[in-house]
Amino acid sequence: MAKIVQCVPNFSEGRRVEVIEAITGAIKQVEGVSLLDYSYDESHNRSVVTFIGEPKAVLEAAFQGAKKAAVLIDMSKHSGGHPRMGATDVIPFIPVKGVEMSDCVELAGKLGKRLADELNIPVYLYEEAASKPERKNLSEVRRGQYEGLIEAIREPGRKPDFGPAEVNLRAGVTAVGARPPLIAYNINLGTADLNIARDIARGIRGSGGGFPTVKALGILIEATGQAQVTINVCDYKKVPLHRIFELVKREAARYGVAVTGSEIIGLTPLDALVDASEFYLQMEGFERSQVLENRLLE
Amino acid sequence: MAKIVQCVPNFSEGRRVEVIEAITGAIKQVEGVSLLDYSYDESHNRSVVTFIGEPKAVLEAAFQGAKKAAVLIDMSKHSGGHPRMGATDVIPFIPVKGVEMSDCVELAGKLGKRLADELNIPVYLYEEAASKPERKNLSEVRRGQYEGLIEAIREPGRKPDFGPAEVNLRAGVTAVGARPPLIAYNINLGTADLNIARDIARGIRGSGGGFPTVKALGILIEATGQAQVTINVCDYKKVPLHRIFELVKREAARYGVAVTGSEIIGLTPLDALVDASEFYLQMEGFERSQVLENRLLE
Repeated sequence: MAKIVQCVPNFSEGRRVEVIEAITGAIKQVEGVSLLDYSYDESHNRSVVTFIGEPKAVLEAAFQGAKKAAVLIDMSKHSGGHPRMGATDVIPFIPVKGVEMSDCVELAGKLGKRLADELNIPVYLYEEAASKPERKNLSEVRRGQYEGLIEAIREPGRKPDFGPAEVNLRAGVTAVGARPPLIAYNINLGTADLNIARDIARGIRGSGGGFPTVKALGILIEATGQAQVTINVCDYKKVPLHRIFELVKREAARYGVAVTGSEIIGLTPLDALVDASEFYLQMEGFERSQVLENRLLE
Repeated sequence: MAKIVQCVPNFSEGRRVEVIEAITGAIKQVEGVSLLDYSYDESHNRSVVTFIGEPKAVLEAAFQGAKKAAVLIDMSKHSGGHPRMGATDVIPFIPVKGVEMSDCVELAGKLGKRLADELNIPVYLYEEAASKPERKNLSEVRRGQYEGLIEAIREPGRKPDFGPAEVNLRAGVTAVGARPPLIAYNINLGTADLNIARDIARGIRGSGGGFPTVKALGILIEATGQAQVTINVCDYKKVPLHRIFELVKREAARYGVAVTGSEIIGLTPLDALVDASEFYLQMEGFERSQVLENRLLE
């Protein structure tokens, strides 16, 4: 069976399109890698690139992207609205098919070592690849950002996992990690009452005492006048789409409000949809190899 | 995007394993074809082979399989419990990905012509490839079977679509067609009362006034003591799994019986499961290209 890993590096460049294209160019020239998507934000001054491929090819492409960013982005001159600490700010590896989380943790370690050895960039491992519990959380790893880390990196507790305890003044510092696929999932309510969406969001998200792997906000969609619960499903194997959908539906019913629909924004692993079918159709003994298309990837 | 066609030929051999393996061998040696499955039944004296690949490769493999069967199976000596008229009895082409039904109809025509021209086998086109309405139905095409067709093939209404109006005494006659994927789908009831399963089956199937593309029977599963509605979903785009499941659930409730689960037997196109997720999660504006794995097949 083909092994497929996804990688979603974030680079500290959201204004100079030619720089972003040079980086994506370096990534997609690696054989066996498919560039799926990239987007950038001028006010954040940051870009997000998505690509997939066999583990070895993805590792190489991530390195080539980071190498190009280290040449073209100077962190000592960078400003933008999003927290960041490096030209290549974060590089998560995500298991998609035929690979385990442990394989992605291994990839993170290999890439971290290479970024330190060949590019002299200090690297922190984060999320599932973290070397200590407090480094699981990216915002903790990035605390102080580029400017603050110039001093803070010398503290014993903040010694990088790879490379020198000294910020690379041009390329900054990079976090490399492993995590499950993230699904951006919105649920639309049959009401214009923002407070209802906010209440429901609070009830399901980890920070409100709900599911630890779910982030959620209540917002109002101007175009439709509908309140929406906008959700990041950070680990669909722990908390699947159908559980979130059914819970939101039930919570909305308490206000006499119907759920009018839901949306997946961007990409989703097939698995997450098959999980939903299995749940609703009460399927017994279903194997993923029964999906015709899965046979094509073997 | 890769184009993928499935082909499920039935051969009139279910006893001599070496013959079946010679036929599957001829199929899988064609480059670009993946043999997914084959099974055979001694009492039917018949085998069913499933393979997929690009249209051109699938056409070639279907021809090679039929050619081998014409050499190794002698219809004048064949007996078995299943209706049949040829060494290669039926060859349906099924659109899976990036192809339309019309492409499969075209494949059926090309293969039919080749079987007639190169192997001197009379060919009827059936189902979506049929040249007349009465030939859509395979059992009508096969009426009289091998023995009866020796005479009947000379009747004006039964002139083959390709080849001579004379049965090939060794290889018989072959039906070549195009059809949607068939999903074998069972729904288990929380009762041992076979009559309830039979009543529900009658209500949903075409022959009982239900969905024309649905076949259904009520049976009793000895091992579990549960009644089951066993279903052939012959066109999941017209009547999707979730509609059948919800209807059976509702009909069972009328007897105070719960649905305890459902099963897909064998293969299903991804699409059928994504359709179910879309229905239950009330998804808005979902595109199949949002499924990560679909990007891998492009």
